[in-house]
This record gives sequence, C-alpha cells and structure tokens, in this order.
Amino acid sequence: MSWVEGAAGSPYDVHNLPYGVFAHGDVPARIGVRIGEYVLDLDGAEAAGLVLAGGALREPSLNAFMALGQAQWGTVRKRVVELLTDPAHRPAVAPLLHPLAEVDLLMPFAVGDYVDFYSSEQHASNVGQIFRPGEPPLLPNWKHLPIGYHGRAGTVVVSGTPVVRPAGQHSTGDGPGYGPSTRLDIEAEVGFVIGLGSALGDRVPVEDFRAYVFGVVLLNDWSARDLQAWEYRPLGPFLGKSFATSISPWVVPLDALEHAWVPAPEQDPPVLEYLRDEPHLGLDLRLAVDWNGSRVSEPPFAGMYWTPAQQLAHLTVNGASVRAGDLYASGTVSGVRRDQVGSFLELTWGGAEPVALAEGVARSWLADGDTVTISATAAGPDGRTVALGEVTGTVLPARP
Amino acid sequence: MSWVEGAAGSPYDVHNLPYGVFAHGDVPARIGVRIGEYVLDLDGAEAAGLVLAGGALREPSLNAFMALGQAQWGTVRKRVVELLTDPAHRPAVAPLLHPLAEVDLLMPFAVGDYVDFYSSEQHASNVGQIFRPGEPPLLPNWKHLPIGYHGRAGTVVVSGTPVVRPAGQHSTGDGPGYGPSTRLDIEAEVGFVIGLGSALGDRVPVEDFRAYVFGVVLLNDWSARDLQAWEYRPLGPFLGKSFATSISPWVVPLDALEHAWVPAPEQDPPVLEYLRDEPHLGLDLRLAVDWNGSRVSEPPFAGMYWTPAQQLAHLTVNGASVRAGDLYASGTVSGVRRDQVGSFLELTWGGAEPVALAEGVARSWLADGDTVTISATAAGPDGRTVALGEVTGTVLPARP
Repeated sequence: MSWVEGAAGSPYDVHNLPYGVFAHGDVPARIGVRIGEYVLDLDGAEAAGLVLAGGALREPSLNAFMALGQAQWGTVRKRVVELLTDPAHRPAVAPLLHPLAEVDLLMPFAVGDYVDFYSSEQHASNVGQIFRPGEPPLLPNWKHLPIGYHGRAGTVVVSGTPVVRPAGQHSTGDGPGYGPSTRLDIEAEVGFVIGLGSALGDRVPVEDFRAYVFGVVLLNDWSARDLQAWEYRPLGPFLGKSFATSISPWVVPLDALEHAWVPAPEQDPPVLEYLRDEPHLGLDLRLAVDWNGSRVSEPPFAGMYWTPAQQLAHLTVNGASVRAGDLYASGTVSGVRRDQVGSFLELTWGGAEPVALAEGVARSWLADGDTVTISATAAGPDGRTVALGEVTGTVLPARP
Repeated sequence: MSWVEGAAGSPYDVHNLPYGVFAHGDVPARIGVRIGEYVLDLDGAEAAGLVLAGGALREPSLNAFMALGQAQWGTVRKRVVELLTDPAHRPAVAPLLHPLAEVDLLMPFAVGDYVDFYSSEQHASNVGQIFRPGEPPLLPNWKHLPIGYHGRAGTVVVSGTPVVRPAGQHSTGDGPGYGPSTRLDIEAEVGFVIGLGSALGDRVPVEDFRAYVFGVVLLNDWSARDLQAWEYRPLGPFLGKSFATSISPWVVPLDALEHAWVPAPEQDPPVLEYLRDEPHLGLDLRLAVDWNGSRVSEPPFAGMYWTPAQQLAHLTVNGASVRAGDLYASGTVSGVRRDQVGSFLELTWGGAEPVALAEGVARSWLADGDTVTISATAAGPDGRTVALGEVTGTVLPARP
C-alpha cells in the first residue's frame, strides 16, 4: 500500500502503476506513473537519481523506456513501488507528485505501426449476419488465423481528443453519394503496446509474448460504417477508420495484470503449430461502454477467440519486424448478449433497433456532441481491482 | 550544367538533384544530394554555411527538411544548383563530394504511415480476371474512388536490402496449409512522399498537392500471392504484403519532374467534386522491370487512372492528417500490353504462362536468389532525361 494520500485500497495503488505522459503548466511532455489520483513525475525522479533507466524516463514519450526490455521494466517497477510504499522516501518523492486534476495527459508513446485484429467470434458473426444475411456468418479463414489489417498510426489520438465527424463517399444504391457520415460508430477494443523490437525476417514465437509486449491500453476504433461499406472491397477498411482512433492515456504494464489471465475459449478446429499457445490464456478484462453517461454495454474480453500472444505470433510469422511503440488492437470486443457488444452496429443491429439512453433519448448512431467512454477493470492481487485508464471522446460536427 | 566531373549531360545533372541519406566510412547517416556519380554531403554543406535550412539538413533523415515546406525546398534547391554550377564554389564544395561507389545509401526518411493505392485500371482489371473469372473485372466502387489501404511502415526498406521469403498460411483447398510462400511476386509502383503536414480534421484539397508532396520514389511492393489470397477477406491484404516493401534510396523532388506532367486518362463516369483536378495531370514516368538482368516489362506510369493529387485528396477527405515522411504508393503500374505489366502475377497470368529469362531459364514466380530491379526515367528540361534512382532487392531463402 502506498503512502500517497488516497491511493491505498484504490484501483490505482502500487499493484497497478500505469505509465503515461503528462504536461503541467510550463512543463512540457514528461513521463509519469499514476498512483491514486496523482501522477509521479518520473522524469524528475530519474533526474534526481531516485530511479535509474539510462535516461529513458527523461524522454517525452515511453518509446525509449519500453525499448529497454522486460528486465528493465521489472527493475523500474520494483523501484517505483519502493518509492511509493516506503515512507522513508516520502520527503524526496512527494514534491514530484502532481494531482491528476492539474495535469494534461498526452499521447503516452509515438505509435509505430497500428494493426487492428478482428478476434471476437461473436463480433465477427454479428457483422457477418448484418452485412451478409443468409450467408455463413464467418468466412472460411476466420478460425484458422487471426484476421487483421493495418490502420493509420498517425491518427491515433489520446483520450479526450475531439473526433470530427468524417466526410466521404457512401453508396446510394445507384452510385456514390458524398457527405458527412450518417452511420458513425465506435469499436470498444483492447490495445497491446510493443516494447522490445524484433529484426526484419525474424518471428516472435507465441511463447515470447511477454518479452515483447510492454502493456495494455483501451482503444476506441471510431468507424464510419457508410464510408466503410462502400470502400472496403477488395482491400479492406480505409477512410471508414482512418480519421481517428482513440487510446487511453495510461499504459497498464503486463506486470499489473498477472492475476487477470484466464483460460481462453477452446479453439476448434485446432490451430496450426505456430499459433499453439500452451497454456492458452486470455485476459479477463471487463469493459464498459458509456454513451452520454448511460451504460449501454459491458463487453467481456475473456471471451476473445484469438489471444494476444497468438495475434503477435501471427503478425510476425512472415518475418515482419516490430518496434517499440507498435500498437496492435484486439478488434471489437463483443460477448454473446446484446448488452455485451462492443459496437453500436451490433447494439442497434445495423441501426434498425435504436437504443434508449437517459432521459428518453434514443440513438441508432452517434450524433454530434455525443460522448463515448470506454473503461475496464481486472482482478489484481489479494482481491484488489486493477483499473485501466478510460478512453473517452466527443463527436464534433463535420467541417463545412 | 554542373562542374562536377561526369555530371553534365547525365540524367543526374542539376536538373535532377534527388535527395538521400548516406553513410561513409566512419561518418554515420547524413543527408546528401546526388550529382552525377557523386553525392554532395549536405550536412557538411550546412555546417560550413554553404546552404542554410535551419539545421534541417544536419539531421540523419529527410523528415525535418521535408517538413519545412515548399518555399524552403525551392530555396535550398536553387542554392544547391548555384553551388554545383558556379565554378567559384568549387574549392569549397569539392571536398564535400563523395563518389557513390564509396558510400552506403540508407533509408532516406523515417516512414510515418504507408498507404498503398490500386490505381491502374489495367492492373485492377487483370487481377479481377485472374482471381474472379467470369465476374466483372472491376468492382462497382473502383471508378468512383481511388481504392487504397494501409501497409506496414516499419518494414519499408531501402533498395538493396535482401528480402527473406515469407512463411505463412495458404489455402490447400481443404483448409489451411503452412510454409514458405511459393507464389512470391513484385509490384512495380511509384511512391509519393509527404513533406508538409496537415492538422487532424482538415482536408488537403486536390489543388494543394504540390504544397504537401515533397517528392517521388520508386517502390517494390513485394507480395506473397498465396498468403494474400487466403487472408484477405474481409479486411484486405496483411501478411501477404507486410514482410517487406522496398524503396529507391533517392527521393526525386517534384521540382525535377516539372516537364513530366501529361494529361491523365479521361475519367468516365465523372468523379465527385472533391476529386476533380483541373488540369487533370499524371506523371509520364517510364518504368522498367529487370528480373535477373532480363528486361521483362516497361510499365507506363502516364496511364494511371487516378492521379497522385486525387489520391492525396481522397486520403484526407475524411479529416485524416498527414505528416512529413508519410508515403503513399500508386499501386501496381500496368499498361495494356503483357510487356507493360507491373507484377509477375499478370506477366505469367497467375503463374500459368511462365516467362523466359536469360539463358533458357523460365519463371512463374520468384525463386530464391532472384534479383528484381525497377528503374524509371522521365522527360526533363531542354530534351534532357531525369532518372529516378533504381530500387533493387534479392530474395533470400525462408528462415528454417
């Protein structure tokens, strides 16, 4: 338990310690770690010799620190726990704490490549039923490999960044129409952040997941369904997704999620050798989606068909390299029940069944001014809870 | 005409002046400009006050220089022409010239996002006929928008980098198989490099192309057709492309291609307003593909259906931002004749019609040890020729 006021017993006690980047008054971007309702200035801590990471904590993003690898991540985490639990350190450390309310949270890392998977069987089945009614909901390849594609890294933004409604082409049924998207949606996802890089031509075996992945973010893959439906054949989603992808400001290290691993759903048919992970584990993260303050869904991450270790092994099996700051997301997290789906496409079944929000307001898709917030918790040690920093965003009207 | 020995009259005289990054003995990555068979050390030139760019030429990549924008690109180019043509500068400049044979050419810029279009009507038609025989070769959206998708930026490599044959899943007709790709292919393309960045939510109008695009590279989008065919539905190509994309070491500035603009093919049906470029111009770059030294194809870039200005306007119409170092490629360049296609998929019609190389060797797909080189020329001023630096790569066997 931390000596920091209010931290003890909270989901942001020393069992969590997510990393982020903050600015504070005249102080530009600095690495910090969250403890309770404070951020500990790790740039200041390394400058004062309280923690040592070869200067990597004095950078304006997490990339250099993440690139140091698992042993260093552990060493720094252990030291930060000491600083925040041993009252002897309080005099030196307390001046480096800033109330969260007084800082701006910035992008925690520079995104290298951004890959988005499609690994919820329930989500893929729902989408198949909505878009290809009467056909088998899953395509023949779906249970043999984690389907994924590259998204736009340059438009990954930190939680709180407004999202301008995108314009573009859609199908009128008789050729193309043009205008602001009228089917703006979200996708509630979990993102994995690469720390250790690999060499071009090498593969990351499924069992090496923890050596390469530094931590976890929550992610909202904003989606314009009308743009996407018209453009996606044959090369996949492009402008329907590339206008914005939001991530939580806090990267929760895998070390904080040790108690959240659970057996993943059995895979039938059996997967190819390079995808076989034993034990076959997923993370039991319990997501929640709030639409203008109304809780509309609680997607269960534990039910994902493909695990993050399998996703990374697949992503690199062709020799593609990874770098510190690469981000790969799970795909929309959807459970079996309607109140467990991770997109409004599914929640309103293609817009046909509007959902009731507070005060008698009904919605099929996002309206200008709407705010969506995704949050999550997981089991921590000794019955405690680990919270993942929420990701939120508000829709602005399309530009004229 | 330059005073540099051998440059005058060559396709790398002062009408060209492509930028790159080189290393030389103990000297690490530096920006240089090619003149004849030499590279002029621009880091050294800026250090000596011979050219001024606020330090941007003293970086190890072109990104900071490209981010300065069109006016600065013009100022620096004009100054470099002065340095290389006025013999009065020779005593100061000559020590900064290195023979190309003595330097290593490195990645010229850090790639932000990499987008690949699909803008040759002939290529899209050929692929449609090969993969979907009996169906209309072009999908309904193809003539309304430049189809594109995001590729992997982290595996864009400079010419000369060996390409390890990728392994992965393919279809056996009865489920998945696994192994090294047996249908390894190329795609001969032209890449456009962003200099000026835009803000998230803004669009780059079709007429602003020259303000944002710094220059042009040649690009080989290596493709594993067997991996691609099995994985690409519904989210597009992924591992079939992500193992490597090669670019030429030289970025030819748009200023060097002023004389290469020609009317682009008429577009019917008419395109939407945001894609209307007047005049509607394409670049008359004449590509050549050499396979183990045999010239197998001469793809004509002038015939591309979608122009680079239209591609950039489309890429940003949804408010997606661009950054210095973003790269977007044309898609495979194919003309109407078999000896004008930009992929071996088309050259051998899906592998069914092997092509004869030198010495009685026939090939359907790339074999280990094969080398492919793509080169190009364009018209310059006063009847001169502009050469684009070639992009080459050799296939290494799959890793065990």
